Amino acid sequence: MSRQILILPGDGIGPEIMAQAERILASVNDSFALDLVSVHDLVGGSAIDAHGEPLSAATLALAQESDAVLLGAVGGPKWDKVDMALRPERGLLGLRAGLNLFGNLRPAILYPQLADASSLKPELVAGLDLLIVRELTGGIYFGQPRGVRINAQGDREGFNTYIYNETEIRRIGRQAFVAAQKRGKKLCSVDKANVLEATVLWRDVMIELSAEYPDVELSHMYVDNAAMQLVRAPKQFDVMVTGNMFGDILSDCAAMLTGSIGMLPSASLDANGKGMYEPIHGSAPDIAGQGIANPLATILSVAMMLRYSLSAEAAALAIEAAVGQVLDQGLRTADIYSVGTERVSTSQMGDAVLAAL
Amino acid sequence: MSRQILILPGDGIGPEIMAQAERILASVNDSFALDLVSVHDLVGGSAIDAHGEPLSAATLALAQESDAVLLGAVGGPKWDKVDMALRPERGLLGLRAGLNLFGNLRPAILYPQLADASSLKPELVAGLDLLIVRELTGGIYFGQPRGVRINAQGDREGFNTYIYNETEIRRIGRQAFVAAQKRGKKLCSVDKANVLEATVLWRDVMIELSAEYPDVELSHMYVDNAAMQLVRAPKQFDVMVTGNMFGDILSDCAAMLTGSIGMLPSASLDANGKGMYEPIHGSAPDIAGQGIANPLATILSVAMMLRYSLSAEAAALAIEAAVGQVLDQGLRTADIYSVGTERVSTSQMGDAVLAAL
Ligand SMILES: CC(C)[C@H](C(=O)O)[C@@H](O)C(=O)O
Ligand SMILES: CC(C)[C@H](C(=O)O)[C@@H](O)C(=O)O
Repeated sequence: MSRQILILPGDGIGPEIMAQAERILASVNDSFALDLVSVHDLVGGSAIDAHGEPLSAATLALAQESDAVLLGAVGGPKWDKVDMALRPERGLLGLRAGLNLFGNLRPAILYPQLADASSLKPELVAGLDLLIVRELTGGIYFGQPRGVRINAQGDREGFNTYIYNETEIRRIGRQAFVAAQKRGKKLCSVDKANVLEATVLWRDVMIELSAEYPDVELSHMYVDNAAMQLVRAPKQFDVMVTGNMFGDILSDCAAMLTGSIGMLPSASLDANGKGMYEPIHGSAPDIAGQGIANPLATILSVAMMLRYSLSAEAAALAIEAAVGQVLDQGLRTADIYSVGTERVSTSQMGDAVLAAL
Repeated sequence: MSRQILILPGDGIGPEIMAQAERILASVNDSFALDLVSVHDLVGGSAIDAHGEPLSAATLALAQESDAVLLGAVGGPKWDKVDMALRPERGLLGLRAGLNLFGNLRPAILYPQLADASSLKPELVAGLDLLIVRELTGGIYFGQPRGVRINAQGDREGFNTYIYNETEIRRIGRQAFVAAQKRGKKLCSVDKANVLEATVLWRDVMIELSAEYPDVELSHMYVDNAAMQLVRAPKQFDVMVTGNMFGDILSDCAAMLTGSIGMLPSASLDANGKGMYEPIHGSAPDIAGQGIANPLATILSVAMMLRYSLSAEAAALAIEAAVGQVLDQGLRTADIYSVGTERVSTSQMGDAVLAAL
């Protein structure tokens, strides 16, 4: 029975990197007889331009009936002046909420071939392989009430609500514990329990859950300290789990430790393994249309999709091995180029991965 | 007319580092004829032990009638099980709120003598000198409503409120613009205006304010990107201004970029220049009582106090120069020790600064 993938290239470099990812997907679809069918649609700025909104009901419905979603990137200066409720980012948030993608897996891996790219000293990041599990459909991103109002003094007042219930915490906690079980068996839960009550509950629930995962060593860290420790000694971490807002900040920080965010994929999962997959980098409007963007994060997102949503581990491994091979060959897009390597374009990088497959 | 300094050594290494800072304060008090009088009190864990609460009304009153407060550090595992409302940190938060210390200045300076201590590559941090201006009495730290309740589904639910009104934003904004005017004239305001309404207002007010400071170049950055840029290229920043929560995270991250948080002081100011001064590092209970803690951050906090609250710029500069001299002499406490330098104790470091004065 064929399964459906919704392809959402998005804005900026999105279409360029997606074109390469689709070639890879088509290739493994054939060679591994996966019987995948792709459908395409618009999201973000391109959807605003076409329909006046960043995520149409039809697109969301298509996403809901698909087995997985592959997304490029959204946003750009063109839509910066658009009303908050209709900005490109809302398309992304709408997909996360509309598909119940509460679990965001963000690996930060330093490829040995790219060790020099990190801004950290090599010995501190060599072999870095950490996973941030970020809650994605709750917390302050979605909490009500929210808005800008006039207060009793006649002042404008902006407000948001940071809120988590134990059911939400438990389901993301389980995902993180299970991820840790499959890796180094160390889970660090990040909160600000010395100040925020919302995260006191977070910590309590993580402690309760840990009884079910006796093989995983649970620790807790305040978010300010976590930001420091990521910079000081990132290899102390195996899996980190945290809320939406802290996860946004820490996962970008962790990704940057590798020096090559053009390489990092991500998965956003619901309770049943359905997911949306996207590079962690943005739409990079400054280099869009030049054919120089790095398609590897999107290609590696295809691998994650095959692994997590399509039970096609062998195909996932094949893609990851092919990416390793092109790096070994010294091929580099501009963002990861260094002296002594060979600079290639977006499509040449696609060619090389395809050849390595 | 004599001015009063409230000395709050606090917990852990607090008393040890404060003892050295007091020697320095006494020395400049004499040599610059500052006519400062010190009074002492307890805060944090030591106050819990003595009075059952981390900040007594009497201590707060003493702080209110003093011209400045010098604080060591609070907290430790001994009080980890204490009820949230009575934890050592509440003493700190109570002082901030009770004294209206809305403006937190956190410099992240890399001392050339300690360039190796950074986990970043030397060329990325050499000469680093950035200032984070953090709002300290508002935002999600103090927002109401807050707590843990049972929701309609019978679930526990933790919640906090992220809230800023334009008056609060304007006063911290002014402080940041003025700080930028005295430095490199670049101000980067950090928010999450693509998601949080509270920070949409923050950005709007910063833009409104910028008309009054045409000599300062204002830019905006999302907090996730700011965390990345701090790791990637911290020297792009001069002054950053942000809310309480983001400031907590980013200032610790920025401090860690220097690799020597034992060196970094901070100031927390009200609208009239009154302030509380403290090292940015914590109470380090693991090394308390061993006489090995670095007193320089507290000593440099004395310099900030002299500069911002006591109009004693010459004395501040003298202390800063003396600290530079002991670093030049190769004297190092354990936290900043490296091969080829001379390891000294807390009190020996105090001796050396005193001699250099
Ligand atoms: C674009 C933005 C809404 C989004 C977020 O904050 O979640 C992005 O930063 C991310 O991390 O995927
Ligand atoms: C101890 C804690 C309450 C405090 C804070 O979060 O503000 C500390 O981390 C700081 O930055 O001074």
